[in-house]
Amino acid sequence: MSVNLKRPNKENILNISGIKLSTAESGLKYNNRKDLALIALDEGAVVAGVFTKNQFIAAPVVIAKSNLNIGPHKRAFIINTGSANAGTGKKGLEDAKEICNVLASSLKIDSNEILPFSTGVIMAYLPTDKIKESIPLLVDNLNADNWLDAAEAIMTTDTIPKAASTSGVIDDSKILVTGISKGSGMINPNMATMLAFIGTNANISAEMLQELIKEVTEKTFNKISVDGETSTNDSFIIVATNKADHKQITSKNKHYEILKDLLMDNAMELSQAIIRDGEGATKFIEIVVEQGENEKDCDEIAKVIANSALVKTAFFASDPNLGRILAALGNAQIEGLDPSLINIFLNDLLFAKNGSIAADYSELKGSEEMNKNEICLKIQMGRGLATSTMWTTDLSYDYVKINSEYRT
Amino acid sequence: MSVNLKRPNKENILNISGIKLSTAESGLKYNNRKDLALIALDEGAVVAGVFTKNQFIAAPVVIAKSNLNIGPHKRAFIINTGSANAGTGKKGLEDAKEICNVLASSLKIDSNEILPFSTGVIMAYLPTDKIKESIPLLVDNLNADNWLDAAEAIMTTDTIPKAASTSGVIDDSKILVTGISKGSGMINPNMATMLAFIGTNANISAEMLQELIKEVTEKTFNKISVDGETSTNDSFIIVATNKADHKQITSKNKHYEILKDLLMDNAMELSQAIIRDGEGATKFIEIVVEQGENEKDCDEIAKVIANSALVKTAFFASDPNLGRILAALGNAQIEGLDPSLINIFLNDLLFAKNGSIAADYSELKGSEEMNKNEICLKIQMGRGLATSTMWTTDLSYDYVKINSEYRT
Repeated sequence: MSVNLKRPNKENILNISGIKLSTAESGLKYNNRKDLALIALDEGAVVAGVFTKNQFIAAPVVIAKSNLNIGPHKRAFIINTGSANAGTGKKGLEDAKEICNVLASSLKIDSNEILPFSTGVIMAYLPTDKIKESIPLLVDNLNADNWLDAAEAIMTTDTIPKAASTSGVIDDSKILVTGISKGSGMINPNMATMLAFIGTNANISAEMLQELIKEVTEKTFNKISVDGETSTNDSFIIVATNKADHKQITSKNKHYEILKDLLMDNAMELSQAIIRDGEGATKFIEIVVEQGENEKDCDEIAKVIANSALVKTAFFASDPNLGRILAALGNAQIEGLDPSLINIFLNDLLFAKNGSIAADYSELKGSEEMNKNEICLKIQMGRGLATSTMWTTDLSYDYVKINSEYRT
Repeated sequence: MSVNLKRPNKENILNISGIKLSTAESGLKYNNRKDLALIALDEGAVVAGVFTKNQFIAAPVVIAKSNLNIGPHKRAFIINTGSANAGTGKKGLEDAKEICNVLASSLKIDSNEILPFSTGVIMAYLPTDKIKESIPLLVDNLNADNWLDAAEAIMTTDTIPKAASTSGVIDDSKILVTGISKGSGMINPNMATMLAFIGTNANISAEMLQELIKEVTEKTFNKISVDGETSTNDSFIIVATNKADHKQITSKNKHYEILKDLLMDNAMELSQAIIRDGEGATKFIEIVVEQGENEKDCDEIAKVIANSALVKTAFFASDPNLGRILAALGNAQIEGLDPSLINIFLNDLLFAKNGSIAADYSELKGSEEMNKNEICLKIQMGRGLATSTMWTTDLSYDYVKINSEYRT
């Protein structure tokens, strides 16, 4: 099940000069299913990343962060599904390192030029033998036009591979951006169980790329929530291969802004695709909080509504039981919230005015809006000028089904 | 559905000298269903209360708090189901006051000696006419042995009325305690959508009763969670009728401790009954956090696990997908959490040792414990000596069903 999300058309996915990809079916969890992906970067590429804030951090994330701290010039990412290699202690770290070592010698690069990623069941050891056996094949099959294959290989409970491209111009140079993402549950701000990799041929310093990924994350991947969970493995990576001819971006100039817009568009599409394919999702819900005192308060309001089980089941039922939204709002950790200043809209329908039932509101009008599968919930706080937008899903039988049967 | 919870036997529910109760079927939402309760107190009774921390506070709670602030000597509580009278603005306040006024003149008391309570749909006006019509009947039918009837009258999605009694002795005086509670969803620490009323014949000052209710709430009603929601209407009230012969309790002496133990037992039974009858609950889960640096940290750990949709669906599926517990733990807002110090037990089975898979653990052993319908999850933090215990349920298809169909 997914909400207005289509399988990407391979013709629309642009190759990025300096990036090659490959996949393998190594039988990590299921037979006849792609479960390994390799992304190889030409020398000169710079890499920036943001990682989970969960304190139970998975072994591959420990190593990816540590290798990225050594320096931004990386040569390969290897991603497996099936096991998250989290809660696996010392053995988990050794297993992840071993994979990097074997891949490094096969690619003839240094082991710390590799970032490993895992997604799948937590507290399950990595089937290292199967992964190692597949490495020669992965290295042999590297190709620039395998983005969509890679998007498929990193899926877990996703029903549709997520890939998107966009393009623009910087100083007469054509700039291409292509990204893939995965993750349909355990999705929450400050990283979801999600992996996302975006590549661009743009020429940018490592320092500026790190600035850029922070700005992009804040407005995209940190603004989605399926179930309020944050995983042990979440990672979002941007690679700039620096192949484009324009002068390198080394400050927040107009070229930086052009590139930011391109990456923002791409990350927005990839992050919203995760919500559209959220576990059991039948509705795509945008929560817009306006007139807040500051952005942090707006985020808190959006989050508490997005993660309310009662609000989410009402959306699933298309039931205009809109009082649940007020109750959720009242739980936000905001000093001196004044309900009598709050207006709330369901799409264009004003249903709560000054914290109470709006005069023109009727159940019938409420039902009409709740029956749509794309809903914008807008909250006006009456406290200031700050805003925040977040995306979430409903909570359906299928969410429970998928998460009750995930391992069986 | 409920987990090992039986309908109370009327013979086991003790009358409390100085308290009379009555109920009515006023057709607020359904026909032929008790939906109104009146609790009348003899002159001289003192009342203490704790109320929701939700900032979208319901009209009756506004009035109950305000009337209680005037002074602790109250004479009546009136409770309706069907409408929560929350998100109803000025009209909501006027409606609640009108009910109090009509009841006051019928009971020949002052309106501010009454505390009103409502539970039901939020953002729906109170059907005041139906309630006012029932008031004469309520007043006529007041009787000391109607506790179980009252427990029935305040039910919403509860499947079983919740009532319990206990007794003890203070200085040769027989002390009786009887309480009722309701609420099976929107249950979260710092009050749940729950109402609870406990009465005792003990003789205690209003000041000490207020101290006592805080201590009791902290260990009982503030330690239960069904779905992480906190409602607009939650209230917990203790009445001491001061009819017992012993010397009045005016300090935290040994009599205070005896009474506290009695009230704690009663509140524990009533609060756990709410969890056992939680919406869609198939399992009763106790979360014990040990070896914390302080109680606040232990509470945070327990809460984040209790409210994790992924942990709850795993419990529902009896699936030992125990890595989800680690992932939930890692999301707790605790400075410098060190996973390598953490041990976790499922009943007596150690499954995570020093943050990683325990050597003796097997899926088979895990399944055996997960299949039970009463499960104790024990987390040892390795940071100190503080502890906290909390109670919760699983997340089932029926939770979604009940909350999708609640109003229809």
